[in-house]
Amino acid sequence: MGTSARSGTRAANSTSPAVLLYNSAVSGNCYKVRLLLAQLELEYEKVDVSVVDRSNREEVLGGLNPALRVPTLVLDDGRPLAESNAILWYFGDGTRYVPEDLYERAQVLQWMFFEQYSHEPHIAVVRFWLAYSGTPERFADQVPARMKAGYAALDAVDKHLATREFLVGGGYSIADVSLYACTHVAHEGGFELEAYRAIRAWLERVAAQPGHVPIDA
Amino acid sequence: MGTSARSGTRAANSTSPAVLLYNSAVSGNCYKVRLLLAQLELEYEKVDVSVVDRSNREEVLGGLNPALRVPTLVLDDGRPLAESNAILWYFGDGTRYVPEDLYERAQVLQWMFFEQYSHEPHIAVVRFWLAYSGTPERFADQVPARMKAGYAALDAVDKHLATREFLVGGGYSIADVSLYACTHVAHEGGFELEAYRAIRAWLERVAAQPGHVPIDA
Repeated sequence: MGTSARSGTRAANSTSPAVLLYNSAVSGNCYKVRLLLAQLELEYEKVDVSVVDRSNREEVLGGLNPALRVPTLVLDDGRPLAESNAILWYFGDGTRYVPEDLYERAQVLQWMFFEQYSHEPHIAVVRFWLAYSGTPERFADQVPARMKAGYAALDAVDKHLATREFLVGGGYSIADVSLYACTHVAHEGGFELEAYRAIRAWLERVAAQPGHVPIDA
Repeated sequence: MGTSARSGTRAANSTSPAVLLYNSAVSGNCYKVRLLLAQLELEYEKVDVSVVDRSNREEVLGGLNPALRVPTLVLDDGRPLAESNAILWYFGDGTRYVPEDLYERAQVLQWMFFEQYSHEPHIAVVRFWLAYSGTPERFADQVPARMKAGYAALDAVDKHLATREFLVGGGYSIADVSLYACTHVAHEGGFELEAYRAIRAWLERVAAQPGHVPIDA
């Protein structure tokens, strides 16, 4: 919020119960949340949920997340919050990771909606199918169209980053967290990043941010 | 922003150039923007872009929207903004259509990300394929999976609305604008809403909001 004290971290109160993150170690969407919480030095507890066997999703996430997906978060007061990018906004707004300018804030949201509509459903989903589902052959006929759309998304991001250090404004923001998550492991889905010079340089800049943690931390 | 004067409309300055909306009359995503701008009594100009023949997208939207989709907006100072829900936030924040409470703001975003990931790609896309593409037969093999996912999204929304008047907090917000857009025309994609009593009552409440305009206004 515009009126909040703006700092790199929120004050951690060690006596309050931690937030609870329903998590998957391999999910890029979950990694986004772990990365920002690490950079904000916010403590949390994790419950790992399978992204392959989804049979217990209603039991575990029913009542917490209408989409029954991870990440799902339960705040320290018991209230649930879902959708990775909404969680990034909740924790990031009021810190250095969300800009104050009205237009830049909208651009952060623009890139996060782009990520969920045009990027993640292609790049992260192909990675999941091929590297983590255990049954890549089941998805073989759907892979070419998704890869084509994934490369179109990478083209758009590379073009945008060709003249910029970060996605929005002059600095690292939750928009970068959001798009970094599945871009930096896109090779696991067979995406070839060699030709994307601007993306590769940006991946290095993001990984060099203070408090950065890798996906397998 | 939390510090802004909160009112139903922003002051319209009749001497400034209007914002320019790259628009499609049939697109639910474009309708969201038209609906909120009408409720805010903000004037704008429209340029209609075909959602069937996409051959001129790079020419028309290149440099304005990395996803080359509509809606794309050009603000009165010439700066572009894309992604329907980011546009809703840009114009809605600071008005009665975006709550002030930090958690409710995140919930608004949660529902808008749900809409773009779990709802629109199924419900709006099937509607487009069957009713507007001109070549429904091309998509026939993809329709059943999309309809199943679309009904799962409707199930989730109906369950949530069973105990609530609107999606977030006590009042109508841009989350309702976002989900109303393609839900109220879902029948054009063959979705049967009879069984969704909570959704049907909510559609009526949304349509009764001050300043509401229909999709074909």
